[in-house]
Amino acid sequence: MRIEYSNKVIKKLRVKIVDKPGFLGHMTTVIGQNACMIGEITTVHLGKGYKIRDIDIYADNESWLQGIIKSIKDFDGIDIIGVVDIVEETHMGGKIETVPTVDVETIDDLKIIYTPGVASVCKKIHEDPSLADKYTTIRNNVAIVTNGTAILGLGDIGAVAGMPVMEGKSLLFKLLSGINGIPVLLDTHDTQEIINTIKHIAPTYGAIKLEDIKAPECFEIEDKLDAMLDIPVLHDDQHGTAVVVLAALLNIAKYTFVNLKEASVGIIGLGAAGTGIMKLLKSYGISEFNGIDLDQSAVERFVSLGGNSKDLRGVVESSKIVIATTGCPDLITPDMIQPGHVILALSNPNPEIDPELAVESGAIFAADGKSVNNALAFPGLFKGALTAHAVTINNAMKIAAAKAIASFALDGDLVPNILDKNVHAAVAKDVETAAYRTSVARYVED
Amino acid sequence: MRIEYSNKVIKKLRVKIVDKPGFLGHMTTVIGQNACMIGEITTVHLGKGYKIRDIDIYADNESWLQGIIKSIKDFDGIDIIGVVDIVEETHMGGKIETVPTVDVETIDDLKIIYTPGVASVCKKIHEDPSLADKYTTIRNNVAIVTNGTAILGLGDIGAVAGMPVMEGKSLLFKLLSGINGIPVLLDTHDTQEIINTIKHIAPTYGAIKLEDIKAPECFEIEDKLDAMLDIPVLHDDQHGTAVVVLAALLNIAKYTFVNLKEASVGIIGLGAAGTGIMKLLKSYGISEFNGIDLDQSAVERFVSLGGNSKDLRGVVESSKIVIATTGCPDLITPDMIQPGHVILALSNPNPEIDPELAVESGAIFAADGKSVNNALAFPGLFKGALTAHAVTINNAMKIAAAKAIASFALDGDLVPNILDKNVHAAVAKDVETAAYRTSVARYVED
Repeated sequence: MRIEYSNKVIKKLRVKIVDKPGFLGHMTTVIGQNACMIGEITTVHLGKGYKIRDIDIYADNESWLQGIIKSIKDFDGIDIIGVVDIVEETHMGGKIETVPTVDVETIDDLKIIYTPGVASVCKKIHEDPSLADKYTTIRNNVAIVTNGTAILGLGDIGAVAGMPVMEGKSLLFKLLSGINGIPVLLDTHDTQEIINTIKHIAPTYGAIKLEDIKAPECFEIEDKLDAMLDIPVLHDDQHGTAVVVLAALLNIAKYTFVNLKEASVGIIGLGAAGTGIMKLLKSYGISEFNGIDLDQSAVERFVSLGGNSKDLRGVVESSKIVIATTGCPDLITPDMIQPGHVILALSNPNPEIDPELAVESGAIFAADGKSVNNALAFPGLFKGALTAHAVTINNAMKIAAAKAIASFALDGDLVPNILDKNVHAAVAKDVETAAYRTSVARYVED
Repeated sequence: MRIEYSNKVIKKLRVKIVDKPGFLGHMTTVIGQNACMIGEITTVHLGKGYKIRDIDIYADNESWLQGIIKSIKDFDGIDIIGVVDIVEETHMGGKIETVPTVDVETIDDLKIIYTPGVASVCKKIHEDPSLADKYTTIRNNVAIVTNGTAILGLGDIGAVAGMPVMEGKSLLFKLLSGINGIPVLLDTHDTQEIINTIKHIAPTYGAIKLEDIKAPECFEIEDKLDAMLDIPVLHDDQHGTAVVVLAALLNIAKYTFVNLKEASVGIIGLGAAGTGIMKLLKSYGISEFNGIDLDQSAVERFVSLGGNSKDLRGVVESSKIVIATTGCPDLITPDMIQPGHVILALSNPNPEIDPELAVESGAIFAADGKSVNNALAFPGLFKGALTAHAVTINNAMKIAAAKAIASFALDGDLVPNILDKNVHAAVAKDVETAAYRTSVARYVED
């Protein structure tokens, strides 16, 4: 059974239970009667006549939880001695750390890794800067930079409040592709200051990943920095999402026999994600785009890129494939759906139209955004670019990534398991090859 | 026996030796006859009638090494099949990495650490920014920032060539005090741009360690940033060195019965280190300072801080304690030394006067810079400041650190073993206490 964490309160109850038959049964029954799921049950202490157990429960909301706690407390022989929030507990102290990769056990070791031994390595790099790839972490470092203006769906909550997301990205970078993802939180909203700051710290990294920076500033910041620096600069909210959407569409086209390149595409919501999707699909070969956004300047940008401005109903009705990234639940109503529609309603946790409802209304295929996670794309996309010493991540590299991701999906699925490291290794390899083919990389022997 | 790595070429010879008595003896004899030291000898392969062994050797220079290699090659039954530079090998690929501290094994784990679970943690921090201490790594992150203008004694070799030093500092931070030391390489020499850049990335860190930035810019950069930001900003080349010098002087005073606070102090070389030392000793209670530098603006700065400008001989002759940080070997000649002098000739690897020569010439105590390593100070200094949530690292905290370091030195030594973690824990604790006492910190319950 699938648990919707987004809608659940996940808690660990620590209970002291009389160690006689029936008490644990009573408690689990009470939890079940309150329509809550039970996860792991572990015994943490065996006392004299009692046990202390930790019980993970998934409650629909805080008041449900309080109801359960009250019901359990009312029963003689069961005490609740602690309630822990599992999400909070997991994030406690942060989720990453910077650690040595060499052992230092003696003063002699210190003389090799630190002064005076380190001086000879510094001198070598000074004489031949390309040796920095060999003797430092730089080539494997990716800055994860945010100013906090568009954290998840939460909006401008500030860079510090976005740190748990940046640390999460860092964790996934290491786990899935071995990259050092290094969070950088910016205190400014000024486009030029952001560009200057990132430019000045750029020598530290092999690539820059812009993260959760709001539109329209994200476009100018990415464009200018990528042109200015000889390392890739990529705004994940645009391109990571676009790559995974293209991967999903490649599989949908296979399952539905839709000719992707000849399909008209409607894009509802023309922010960072919608714009990134449009750009990549256009580069892939799709030529007809219909779009809408509440923000007129976003529509103008869309038109300048070759899209047609329409009203909501017009976008849906004139497009074979409809992709929505608005954050507005139930924006697409069943009466707009026509036979043969392909619908991707990507807003999380609540899509623009329930996929089942869309299919009932005539769509040949519909999906929500649960599986369209840009963490399927960015680890391999950056790894491939770093390995190739690419100066940018271009559309050919993104399309190569999308094809690699699509090819790993199990039959019937849109995309593969995000934790399958083979996927990320394959993406990295195909992105590297695409970089060489399009001459944005130079081969460097290690 | 002490090995002077700074003057040695350290190599690992991989040799294939006939496995009969006498062959290994021959080779080690040849190495010894060439006046080279042998380190570890390890067997890496047992072949049919031969062994492959790795032999670490310390040669005075590259041509000595070539001589040894030739002598060994001339002997029948011994083949050199590889020569590895141990320093290079150790630095290969860099010395640090950014890794997860939480396990992610399932898609459900992902939902807790990443979307959608992470959103609740972000929201909590947005509502109460002080919770960033609890749910992120920020409070335990120290930026190690350089623009590469004064890397070791090598001068302005650029930030990228300085990366091996920054990674070394990061390694020591984690090893000695558990802090995440995060290198940041700047591409600019402009003081105002450096200040702006560091200010803009400051939300990422609990403190900023400026590193190997040349004088005089280092003074303005540190002063302005420390005043501007509510986290400590400390230039290690000034203050780390000063703390360790004060620690050494506390022990010298004990051994020599010199009254430190009433002693006159001569400072030869008024760059970052010399200025930092003067400021800290003044704060400690010493009132008479005599100094010299080739750079007139450095002398003016020294005078403005209350020092007396003298010529070289004048500085030495009018001071009880002479501290030299010039980088010029043999600058102090024996005829300048007077009975009762305390001499710290700190330039590495070659001091301004050989300590033995200084003592022969009448000094009651003399030492060189080998043990005066600022890595004795910075891990505990920053750890204490971070734990206390200090807004700055003031002189009281530095003096507390110096006293703690001094107290751990074995009898007769100036300072303790740098790898003794008890030292760094004690420094951190005393620095934390000093921060509270001087009201630059606020106690925050975890």
